[in-house]
Amino acid sequence: MAQYLKKVAINCDMGEAFGRWKLGPDDELVKVIDYANVACGFHAGDPTTMLKTIRLAKEHGVAVGAHPGLQDLLGFGRRKIEIHPDDMYTMILYQVGALKAMLDAEDVPLNHIKPHGELFFYMQRDLAIMDAVLRACAVFKVPIFGAKGTKHQGAMCRKYDLIFVEEAYVDTQYNKDGVLQSVAASNLATVEDVYERTRSVCFEDSVKEKEGSMIRLGFEEQPFLFCIHSDMPTALDNAKACRKSVDEYNIKKAMIADSAVAVIHSEMVDGT
Amino acid sequence: MAQYLKKVAINCDMGEAFGRWKLGPDDELVKVIDYANVACGFHAGDPTTMLKTIRLAKEHGVAVGAHPGLQDLLGFGRRKIEIHPDDMYTMILYQVGALKAMLDAEDVPLNHIKPHGELFFYMQRDLAIMDAVLRACAVFKVPIFGAKGTKHQGAMCRKYDLIFVEEAYVDTQYNKDGVLQSVAASNLATVEDVYERTRSVCFEDSVKEKEGSMIRLGFEEQPFLFCIHSDMPTALDNAKACRKSVDEYNIKKAMIADSAVAVIHSEMVDGT
Amino acid sequence: MAQYLKKVAINCDMGEAFGRWKLGPDDELVKVIDYANVACGFHAGDPTTMLKTIRLAKEHGVAVGAHPGLQDLLGFGRRKIEIHPDDMYTMILYQVGALKAMLDAEDVPLNHIKPHGELFFYMQRDLAIMDAVLRACAVFKVPIFGAKGTKHQGAMCRKYDLIFVEEAYVDTQYNKDGVLQSVAASNLATVEDVYERTRSVCFEDSVKEKEGSMIRLGFEEQPFLFCIHSDMPTALDNAKACRKSVDEYNIKKAMIADSAVAVIHSEMVDGT
Amino acid sequence: MAQYLKKVAINCDMGEAFGRWKLGPDDELVKVIDYANVACGFHAGDPTTMLKTIRLAKEHGVAVGAHPGLQDLLGFGRRKIEIHPDDMYTMILYQVGALKAMLDAEDVPLNHIKPHGELFFYMQRDLAIMDAVLRACAVFKVPIFGAKGTKHQGAMCRKYDLIFVEEAYVDTQYNKDGVLQSVAASNLATVEDVYERTRSVCFEDSVKEKEGSMIRLGFEEQPFLFCIHSDMPTALDNAKACRKSVDEYNIKKAMIADSAVAVIHSEMVDGT
Repeated sequence: MAQYLKKVAINCDMGEAFGRWKLGPDDELVKVIDYANVACGFHAGDPTTMLKTIRLAKEHGVAVGAHPGLQDLLGFGRRKIEIHPDDMYTMILYQVGALKAMLDAEDVPLNHIKPHGELFFYMQRDLAIMDAVLRACAVFKVPIFGAKGTKHQGAMCRKYDLIFVEEAYVDTQYNKDGVLQSVAASNLATVEDVYERTRSVCFEDSVKEKEGSMIRLGFEEQPFLFCIHSDMPTALDNAKACRKSVDEYNIKKAMIADSAVAVIHSEMVDGT
Repeated sequence: MAQYLKKVAINCDMGEAFGRWKLGPDDELVKVIDYANVACGFHAGDPTTMLKTIRLAKEHGVAVGAHPGLQDLLGFGRRKIEIHPDDMYTMILYQVGALKAMLDAEDVPLNHIKPHGELFFYMQRDLAIMDAVLRACAVFKVPIFGAKGTKHQGAMCRKYDLIFVEEAYVDTQYNKDGVLQSVAASNLATVEDVYERTRSVCFEDSVKEKEGSMIRLGFEEQPFLFCIHSDMPTALDNAKACRKSVDEYNIKKAMIADSAVAVIHSEMVDGT
Repeated sequence: MAQYLKKVAINCDMGEAFGRWKLGPDDELVKVIDYANVACGFHAGDPTTMLKTIRLAKEHGVAVGAHPGLQDLLGFGRRKIEIHPDDMYTMILYQVGALKAMLDAEDVPLNHIKPHGELFFYMQRDLAIMDAVLRACAVFKVPIFGAKGTKHQGAMCRKYDLIFVEEAYVDTQYNKDGVLQSVAASNLATVEDVYERTRSVCFEDSVKEKEGSMIRLGFEEQPFLFCIHSDMPTALDNAKACRKSVDEYNIKKAMIADSAVAVIHSEMVDGT
Repeated sequence: MAQYLKKVAINCDMGEAFGRWKLGPDDELVKVIDYANVACGFHAGDPTTMLKTIRLAKEHGVAVGAHPGLQDLLGFGRRKIEIHPDDMYTMILYQVGALKAMLDAEDVPLNHIKPHGELFFYMQRDLAIMDAVLRACAVFKVPIFGAKGTKHQGAMCRKYDLIFVEEAYVDTQYNKDGVLQSVAASNLATVEDVYERTRSVCFEDSVKEKEGSMIRLGFEEQPFLFCIHSDMPTALDNAKACRKSVDEYNIKKAMIADSAVAVIHSEMVDGT
């Protein structure tokens, strides 16, 4: 956990195939990321794809989280669907429980839960839905991953004794108010863009927004994650560019930490 | 567990509604049975119905098991569907895991797993399917419930260190070879039929088959269960008649056991 | 068509079973209604239920319309789902076309289209959706049935050269502003209520609203329909009470019409 | 129709996307084929994909047929599912009717029906299923496309007054008994293979089978079709190679026919 808190890391949605239909370069992405968010069959994924993705992640030492979504294969969990909070609660238990059983079978722990697409936006819009989702997540006692968002999600997570780990996005853009733009509304990022944005987020807690000025993200030294869109055609290159930048930051950070420990240690030895 | 092994008990399929569509008198049945097999959303049931059924069972002290089936709402899990054993394995993990999460949320243990309809027949016909289902069940380490069937299921269960608890049916009929007949192929049972058949199965390990002669079932003093079809129009009356007969047997059995204990005790006191 | 325009008639949703799950007393309702709205598999119904319902209606001389809905079996087409108008257009074509093929096979004409549940409310809320639905309906060139609603539906229907036939409800209630209340928000109607309300709608174009005063519905001598909810426990009795009242009205109306014709005829004979 | 009977042509499965998931290079394939078999939503496709595919075909002058399948998105219509013939009949009406409505909306005729994957094999195995499918097809009065198969399909088609147009495959292989092998069981075809096989089927009514010898296919001068698998990675190149060969054959054939007509014509002029 200490390790987890200290390092910046990368997560990706995975296992978004459905039967005959494939999506995303999972076999390659898994080599450059730290956390896999595995679709649970409601917006994408199917039981066999889920298990296959877990085994792939396990083989590459990538931690696995559940990626529940709205029950909407046709709309890939991106359409608004009115759901009663009581139904939302059971739908989250259902999906995460299904994945959990496969993790148990593979002797892999459930690392986190990351709500997918419209489910996440629904939580932001509707506190009863956020409450229902987090109440279900609390059964599993793992951190929640999600884009930096409202203040409510922090307060709600505390209510259920859940940790919320915020994400930055570097393959899409923020506007000048710090609001994350959709893939469609963002200019296509080059690998250089991704590398540079990752770097500035890590070292400066800020990023160049769509119109070109720098905006502060405000992670304030708290642990955070990068999330790479796995269904963009440039997904793999983006992930690699982000990885390179993240690794450089983590190494630097570790060296500073080591020096600090050395200083403390020498002070203790000196009795000062 | 000792309790469980000594007594004859009754199980019923429950939670077979789907959204707006209801099925079976669950609210009443729950008062007369010992074990509820809860549908997991593939052949019937939906997340909210599942949780509601778990809470109903919990309220009435009825133990809850998973009732996974083929992914076939339209056919109610009763149509033959060709499924690769690897897919079957993940489909069982998915369904039982989904239910398990709800049980965890309600602090109710998973008591057993009972394969539904065509899934059970598929296991009987195809050893690779039976192996896949039981391998998935082994992740949950609970007994399997199912109709008295092939020798293979016993051997297979031992392979995965699973207990198989056999069932007798008294609202449908056996033929003279001891083969259980479908609802359609059986003469409609009166409550007297159900009461009498339950009685003879309990006390004599035999039952009157379709043509009228008595056949031996062969439970041989092993623990077994009665299963009442919850979707027959006469389901509730059948369950009550079976309950009455089972209670009479269990009380008698307990008295005999108590006498035996008394004898042993007095002998010990007497020093004989 | 003349016949259709002159008489008051009754329609009912039918074919709302799904596989093993039944809903509504179709076999009895069909004997007392004029038009059956047959579910098309998206919110309820399945191909075999659709054909069976068509044959039932045909046998009883009941005209058949399509009853398309949102693609939402779990929510019975009653949940809000965000759908792009282009997708809505194709979803209506899909459903009505599917039913149309079965009607063709049975040599029964498609009589009308009636949007189900939330689909109808969506049309009322969102003009792009109304446009998409009606544009799809225009392919089939049949009247649209629906609750008396906004002015827009009339204008939109004219755009696509479609007739909109308005409905009155007598098993649920209107509020004093003439807004139809849901089943849940209405006091349970007795058969006497249904009979009396039908009578006042027919003869006085008005009905007693929830708080007891009479409100004008405003059909203004235009042809209209009664719609009976087929999934209420009292559905069959309600339909019969409505039928009785409607028949009394139609007979009276026919007698008046006949007298009028007689007068006209005698005038013509008299040369006046 | 005369045109259709004289020329050899190419058909391809199209519209096999489902929501977010794409499949096959439809935009390019449509430029090199004559007939598009459009998936109807049961094994692949969705309403909007169906309409989009119809418009694409219309734009390129490609005739459109229905491509119904088993109701099995997860298995892409390739798994065996037990279906009662009465249900099969309604499922075909449902799917083809759904597509027909979209064709009507676009003023495009329904050209043919081609059963997909396991549905076609089911028809070959089970005469009651073949009867049910063809009885449904008879409602639409269009030719049936399908691989050269049993004698039964010819007889059955005559029963329902349907034309059966046989297909040859050149991107997969036949064994020496003339039985078509699956994609998995065939050696991957090069574009040269496809070109040569098409050529020999056209000119010699025979093809090189898997082990290298030539086998007779037996179209016997009857009109037939080539079918190219649209979901193979090499689909587009295969289609182009087949097109080239087919065009060469059709041109040669037309020249021969023209000469023949010229001969007949000159004979008529000569009075011989």
